[in-house]
Amino acid sequence: MADRDFLADFAALSRIGATPNGGVHREAGSQADGAARRWLCEWFDHHGLATAVDRVGNMYGLAEWLPGAPYVLVGSHLDSQPTAGRFDGAYGVLAAVHAVAAARDAVAGGAVVPMFNLAVVNWFNEEGSRFSPSLMGSGVYTGHLDLDATLEVADQSGVTVREALTEIGFAGSDPMPPAASYAEIHIEQGRILQDTGTTIGIVTANWAARKYSITVHGAQSHTGATHLADRRDALVGAARLVLAVRELAEAFDPGQLLGSVGRFTVRPNSPVVVPGTVTLAVDLRSADPEALDKAHELFLAELDAVRAGGEVEVSIDEMSARPSSRYPAAGVELAEAAAGRAGLSSRRMLTMAGHDSVCLKDVVPTVMLFIPSDQGISHNEAEYSEDRDLLDGVRMLTEVVAALLTSPSGLAR
Amino acid sequence: MADRDFLADFAALSRIGATPNGGVHREAGSQADGAARRWLCEWFDHHGLATAVDRVGNMYGLAEWLPGAPYVLVGSHLDSQPTAGRFDGAYGVLAAVHAVAAARDAVAGGAVVPMFNLAVVNWFNEEGSRFSPSLMGSGVYTGHLDLDATLEVADQSGVTVREALTEIGFAGSDPMPPAASYAEIHIEQGRILQDTGTTIGIVTANWAARKYSITVHGAQSHTGATHLADRRDALVGAARLVLAVRELAEAFDPGQLLGSVGRFTVRPNSPVVVPGTVTLAVDLRSADPEALDKAHELFLAELDAVRAGGEVEVSIDEMSARPSSRYPAAGVELAEAAAGRAGLSSRRMLTMAGHDSVCLKDVVPTVMLFIPSDQGISHNEAEYSEDRDLLDGVRMLTEVVAALLTSPSGLAR
Repeated sequence: MADRDFLADFAALSRIGATPNGGVHREAGSQADGAARRWLCEWFDHHGLATAVDRVGNMYGLAEWLPGAPYVLVGSHLDSQPTAGRFDGAYGVLAAVHAVAAARDAVAGGAVVPMFNLAVVNWFNEEGSRFSPSLMGSGVYTGHLDLDATLEVADQSGVTVREALTEIGFAGSDPMPPAASYAEIHIEQGRILQDTGTTIGIVTANWAARKYSITVHGAQSHTGATHLADRRDALVGAARLVLAVRELAEAFDPGQLLGSVGRFTVRPNSPVVVPGTVTLAVDLRSADPEALDKAHELFLAELDAVRAGGEVEVSIDEMSARPSSRYPAAGVELAEAAAGRAGLSSRRMLTMAGHDSVCLKDVVPTVMLFIPSDQGISHNEAEYSEDRDLLDGVRMLTEVVAALLTSPSGLAR
Repeated sequence: MADRDFLADFAALSRIGATPNGGVHREAGSQADGAARRWLCEWFDHHGLATAVDRVGNMYGLAEWLPGAPYVLVGSHLDSQPTAGRFDGAYGVLAAVHAVAAARDAVAGGAVVPMFNLAVVNWFNEEGSRFSPSLMGSGVYTGHLDLDATLEVADQSGVTVREALTEIGFAGSDPMPPAASYAEIHIEQGRILQDTGTTIGIVTANWAARKYSITVHGAQSHTGATHLADRRDALVGAARLVLAVRELAEAFDPGQLLGSVGRFTVRPNSPVVVPGTVTLAVDLRSADPEALDKAHELFLAELDAVRAGGEVEVSIDEMSARPSSRYPAAGVELAEAAAGRAGLSSRRMLTMAGHDSVCLKDVVPTVMLFIPSDQGISHNEAEYSEDRDLLDGVRMLTEVVAALLTSPSGLAR
């Protein structure tokens, strides 16, 4: 019955911002994000959780038993990439909703005696596609990002975070509930669990990442009248960087380094104008900090090589590094014990992608869990996980939440 | 006095859609285009020319002496590329306005006995940046383009030509005035006149051009979780095409072939998503039809090479060819004689860029004139021509208009 409820809820949530090919398009602060948030508010209302919204738009569904005590927070994010899959983030929020409701019932029935309060959380703008950077709501919550500066971040059409949150009715004023611990479950977005026939991944550390916002500066001119010798074609320079990033990644051992250019915006973008500027977002990742440092040096050398060609200028507008760091060992052990009680196979693994838990683990004891993703397909409408895995993940998270509620430190048993 | 009037009018026109760096941003059918068009209507009203607007938004300022007789048409276009120069097209319209007014006064005073009616024309969407293809108004006028299909062309946000013209109040219903001949003056957008110290260029033929709309098809995926072996990165494939076009152009003798990618649109264009598709506009041009044919073959081979890489698919969505063809010799001779009478130096030359006159010359006797462009800079806010050259061009065009009005065939004296 609970399983049927979960799957029905997931189907309902997946209809919000649905795309024709079975995905969702629900970027942070969009009308579709607003609709998904209202759906979640109604769920909280119907199930006796108190809704709170903080100033950066993080939403909480609160169960408070111990006034003044901190909260076990459990959640993920409802926002998506453009034309994305329906599981990324949304599954984690809905699993948290059901795990929290089950724990709340267990407390009410006396089966669990909580040492903390409990809350579902839907973090604002985990994806970072419309408003950069990613991990925005959890970044503000944990102090990695400044609230006021974050509210002034604008999308490519000039709309700020503050305006977008106001527009959808989620510019809140509630205080952020203090956390005793944090748990999150997410689709793997890789093939390891599927390939090894494992149900639950328990994350021990995140890959390190370096991100760069680059502008290639040329000079706008006429495609039909400007001789090659007179050109300063920003697109030619930017294309060289795209291929340099690919070649750089290929120069490492297979699986050691990822290198990508995701955003790539050409101006003025007219068929008969040699492009004047291109802005591009470069993303380098590795589990091995030394490999990433080496890749960083090689990338800077590629920028110099493009500059040295003499046709264009290249500037680094922003540069950030997310180090590889470990999730607490006590949380990994708590999760392994929970998997054992639930009768689910599990393995320790790394997360390649970023998650809100990457922010949270820096400030509170944090448990990060994965379920299998079919073929590892993600950020694509074809993203898929089996119902059986979705339901096993909810059972696993429910065990973890019960354990966190009764652990004196929030983690150690 | 006439010179001061022209320069004052040009300054007034240049303020419409002006950019901070001295250019204009006045794409076809935009609010700024509408404002420039209303300014031109007022000019026609104040100077006794009758305004007519046809169904594709071409505007005419008519002086009719001989009911039923065809018109000497004189004009260019008021629309611009994004963040463009203020001379491209607008100079030609304003020069036509002043030349037509002078001719009208000469007729009124009896100094010229016209064999035709006379009209200024502002062609719709010469530039093709917002609505593709370029040369849209003159293409419909000359039958190169279908009216109804053209009105349904949409910009990148889905607004059609019909909607944009209605929005700015220039979806007309007047008949197209029949042409006896056509004259146009334009900035050169090259360095030849400046480098040779010549005031007037007389165009004898246009460069041939081939244009391609290409889509590179990959698969959207997660930049942080998709291993290189699993990627189908449309941006990597498209970057290879950008560099292939550049290398292809460089493989020809200097000045023989131009190759460019102007429009380049990446989807979904998120920092953390491997791009699923890229659409790009490729532009190849040469004065030598054989060189262009060779370049076409090489380009198709490059598409095959990218496909053969196995990572992406490549489709040609549209492909068009503009042949090199000659302007009528009688028009060139008429213009040379007019330059002689005006005491202006002139030389015969080719046009590399497309102009509305390229369409017109296929259906009526056509004269195409250039004035110098500083350093050949064009489609750039820094585009510049000297006042002296602007004014000499108006004198030249006035001589040509008078000659066309009194030439029995519209050209031969």
